[in-house]
Amino acid sequence: MHLVAIGGSDAGISAALRARELDPTTDVTVVVADAYPNFSICGIPYYISGEVTHWTNLAHRTHADLEATGMRLRLNTLATSIDVHGQRLHLRDAAGAESLLDYDELIVGTGAVPTRPTIQGLDQLGAADGVHLLHSMGDTFALTQSLDRIDPKTALIVGAGYVGLEMAEGLTARGIHVTQVEMLEEVLPTVDPELGALVHAELDRHGVSVHTSSRATRIEKIEGGLHVSGAGPDQEPLSWDVDLVLVVVGVTPDTDLLVRAGAQTGQRGAVVVDDTMATGLPHVWAAGDCVITHHRLLGTTYLPLGTTAHKQGRVAGENALGGNVRFAGSLGTQVVKVFDLVAARTGLREHEAVAAGFAPVTTTATPDDHKAYYPGAHPITIRVTGDQHTGRLLGAQLIGARGTETAKRVDTYATALFHGMTVDAMSELDLSYTPPLGSPWDAVQMATQAWARQHQHATGADQGASA
Amino acid sequence: MHLVAIGGSDAGISAALRARELDPTTDVTVVVADAYPNFSICGIPYYISGEVTHWTNLAHRTHADLEATGMRLRLNTLATSIDVHGQRLHLRDAAGAESLLDYDELIVGTGAVPTRPTIQGLDQLGAADGVHLLHSMGDTFALTQSLDRIDPKTALIVGAGYVGLEMAEGLTARGIHVTQVEMLEEVLPTVDPELGALVHAELDRHGVSVHTSSRATRIEKIEGGLHVSGAGPDQEPLSWDVDLVLVVVGVTPDTDLLVRAGAQTGQRGAVVVDDTMATGLPHVWAAGDCVITHHRLLGTTYLPLGTTAHKQGRVAGENALGGNVRFAGSLGTQVVKVFDLVAARTGLREHEAVAAGFAPVTTTATPDDHKAYYPGAHPITIRVTGDQHTGRLLGAQLIGARGTETAKRVDTYATALFHGMTVDAMSELDLSYTPPLGSPWDAVQMATQAWARQHQHATGADQGASA
Repeated sequence: MHLVAIGGSDAGISAALRARELDPTTDVTVVVADAYPNFSICGIPYYISGEVTHWTNLAHRTHADLEATGMRLRLNTLATSIDVHGQRLHLRDAAGAESLLDYDELIVGTGAVPTRPTIQGLDQLGAADGVHLLHSMGDTFALTQSLDRIDPKTALIVGAGYVGLEMAEGLTARGIHVTQVEMLEEVLPTVDPELGALVHAELDRHGVSVHTSSRATRIEKIEGGLHVSGAGPDQEPLSWDVDLVLVVVGVTPDTDLLVRAGAQTGQRGAVVVDDTMATGLPHVWAAGDCVITHHRLLGTTYLPLGTTAHKQGRVAGENALGGNVRFAGSLGTQVVKVFDLVAARTGLREHEAVAAGFAPVTTTATPDDHKAYYPGAHPITIRVTGDQHTGRLLGAQLIGARGTETAKRVDTYATALFHGMTVDAMSELDLSYTPPLGSPWDAVQMATQAWARQHQHATGADQGASA
Repeated sequence: MHLVAIGGSDAGISAALRARELDPTTDVTVVVADAYPNFSICGIPYYISGEVTHWTNLAHRTHADLEATGMRLRLNTLATSIDVHGQRLHLRDAAGAESLLDYDELIVGTGAVPTRPTIQGLDQLGAADGVHLLHSMGDTFALTQSLDRIDPKTALIVGAGYVGLEMAEGLTARGIHVTQVEMLEEVLPTVDPELGALVHAELDRHGVSVHTSSRATRIEKIEGGLHVSGAGPDQEPLSWDVDLVLVVVGVTPDTDLLVRAGAQTGQRGAVVVDDTMATGLPHVWAAGDCVITHHRLLGTTYLPLGTTAHKQGRVAGENALGGNVRFAGSLGTQVVKVFDLVAARTGLREHEAVAAGFAPVTTTATPDDHKAYYPGAHPITIRVTGDQHTGRLLGAQLIGARGTETAKRVDTYATALFHGMTVDAMSELDLSYTPPLGSPWDAVQMATQAWARQHQHATGADQGASA
C-alpha cells in the first residue's frame, strides 16, 4: 500500500501523519513543491514582526520529526499531472527532471494561492521593487529580503482581513508606518461592521492609517519608492508614496492539478468533495484550502482555514486506508489578535443566515470578562445571532481585550453550535466561575440571556411577558 | 400572587429576579437573615487581600438595584419556621420581634454553614481571640477587624480547598506568613493529587508553609497569640505559634428550617428536591447550597456551587410562577486561581466515575496554550478521563498558568460533557486558532487525542493498530 499526499502544508501532512499513525506498515510519500514541509503559514506575520526569532521555528515539526514518523518527503518537487486510471503522478523536480510516482491512494492538498486583485502595475512589479504578496515561505523570504534591503519607513497594505491586520501589527512593531486600504466598509469584514469598528479604533490607536471603502488602483515605481493611486469612499482620488506595498486580499483555491484530472468544482472554484473527502475520481481524495468545505449550518461553502485543513486531512488519511470516517463540518470558527484586541467569530452572521434560510436576529451585549470588583475587568462585546422562530443559536461574534479569554469563549459557542443548541439553552451549561476569571453566569451566557430577553417570549406563567 | 424567597444569596435572589422578570405583576418578598443581600461571597478572599477596595463592591447588585426590580427585601430577618399548610412563615427581626408572612409560593435558599471540624478549643475560641470561620459577610467583617486589631504576622489556615487556597493567597498578599494544614494527601483535593501537587508547588513558591496529610487537633490561646497542635503524615506531633487561625474546611447544608417543615434529606443531609426544584412539600421550592444537586453524570449528589445556585434559583423562580422548567444538571465545573496558577475541573474523576458505574481511564497531556514559536507559550497540564468501553468523555482537569485561558478551556469540555460526547469526537469540534492564542488542534483536543492514542484502537483500516 503506497499512499501519496501532494502538499506539505496542513492537509497533506495531516493525512500522512494519520495514515502512519493508524497503520505503520503503510508506505507514505509526501510531495512538497517547496523546501518547507509542515510550516505554520499562520505564523508568518510573527516572524516578520520579529516575535518569532528564526524562521525555522515556524515549522510545526522539523524535517527530522516528519521522517521519524516513517513518511517519505519529496521536497522541491512539483506534481504536474495525475494519471487517474494509471494511478500515477507526473513529477518535476527543481532541476527540471521529470519522473513518475505510482500510488494506490492519492490525497491532494495543493492549498490555495494568494488572490491578485486588479491593480494596475501589480503584475509588472514584484519583490525586487518592494511589491509583495504573502502566502508561502518563499514569499516570506522575499519580503524579509526587501525589509532588509529597503529598510522601509512606510508601507501600504492592501486588504484588512486576518493577514492584512496581522501584518499591519507586524510592520508597526518593526517601526514602519502602515497605511491600510480596505475595499469594504470596515476592517475585518468577516465580522459585523459594529465590531470591525472596534478593531479599526485599535489600529488608529497604534498609528495605522486606515482607509475603508477605498481601493488601490495603481502602483508605480518612483524615485526612492512606490506611488500608489486609489479612490476613497466617494470615488475621490487618493494617493500615497510608500517604501513597500503588501497585497493580502485573500486566497483562491489551487485546483489546476485536480481539474485537469477531471475533478468537479463548486463554490469559488474549489474542488467538490463529499464529507469523506473523496473527489469522485477513483482513489483520489482531496482536503484543505483547495476544496469546498462542508459546513454544519450552510451545507457547503468555501472557507479555507488551517483548523479545517487539519481535520479534513486527518479524515482523508484515514479513509484512504479504507476507513469510514466523515468530516463533521466547519462552523467557520476564527480568531485574530490585532494589537491588544482579540476578535473571534463562529457560525453565521445575519446575511449568511438569511441566505441559508434562517430567520436571524442579533443582540449585542457587553458583559465583563470577570467580576468588576476584581481588578482588571474588561467588557467583551458579544453579538449573538439566533433564529427568531426556533430560538436556535446561529452564531456569535466577540471582541475583547487580550487577557479576557475571548479566544476560548468563542469555543463554548462553537461547541454549542456543533450540537444545535438553542440560544436559551446556553443558560443550562455548567461553565466555570471564579471572580478573577468569570461570573456566575459567564459572559457567554449573559450575552445569550440578553438575546433571549430581547427576542423571546416568556416560557413561564405569564406567556405575554418578555423573558 | 405573593412569592416569598428565604435567603439573600445566589439562589434566593436569582429566584426573585426570575419571577419579577417573567411576571412584573408578581409580588415578591425576599427574607434575608443579615443586612447583605446579593453579595458575592466568592469574592470575600479578594476583599481580605485588598484587591477589592471596599466591601460594598462585593454586591452583585446594590440594595437600590434590587428594589428597582420591584422585589421587596426584609433584611436582618430570620425565618424561624414554615407553616406549610397555612402557607405562612414565622419571622423574627433583629430586635427579637416576631411576625407572620403569608405566601402563595415559597422558595427556600438558606444555603450552607461553614463546617466546624473537630478541633479541641475551636468551640471555646472565636473572633475576639483571632480564631475565624469564613462564610458570610458577618464573618468577613469579624476577620477584617481581627486583621486590623492584631496586625498578624503569621496565620494558620485549616483546609486547602478553594476558599483555603484563595485565603492563603489573600493573606500572603497582606504580608502575612501563612501555614496551611490539609488533612488529605494533597492540596486542592477536588482534583487528582498529580495536579494538586502543581498547586502545592505554587504555594511553596509564594512562601506558604504547606502541611498535607496533616491535622490541626487543638487550638489554645497563649500570651500574644495562638498555639495550634496537630499531627503530621506519620502521626508525628506538629505545633505552630501563630497570630491568627482561619478554619475553612467546606460547608454543611443549612436545612433546619426545611427539615422541621417536613422535607426529606439526602446526600450530606441536604434537602431532597426534584429537577423542578420542588421539595415535595406543597408550594415549597428549594434551591442552592441547602439542597441535593442533580448531576448529569451522577444522578444526584451534594455539590454546592454558586453557578448551580444561580441556575437552580432561576428554575425555582420560574416554576413557582407556574412554569415547567427543569434544572438541566450540574457537571461540577469549577475553577480557582491560586497565585499565578489556574486549576479547573469538570465532570468526574476516576473514583467518582467508578462509583457511578463507568469504566474510567485517564491520560495526562501537557500541550502548550498556544504555538510555542510565539512568545509566552506555557504548557497546560490536562487530565482527560473517559470510559474505556464506550469512549465517552467523563471529565477533564486542567492546570495552567494565568493567561493560558485555562478557565474557559474547561468550558469546552463542560459543553462537550453536557452533550455526552465521546473523547474521540472532541477532534471534530471547530475551535478557534491563531498562533498567539491557540493551536490548529486546540490544547483541549491535543489532550483528548492523547487519551484516544492511549486507550482506543484504530477505527481505520488496521483495526489492530493503536490510534
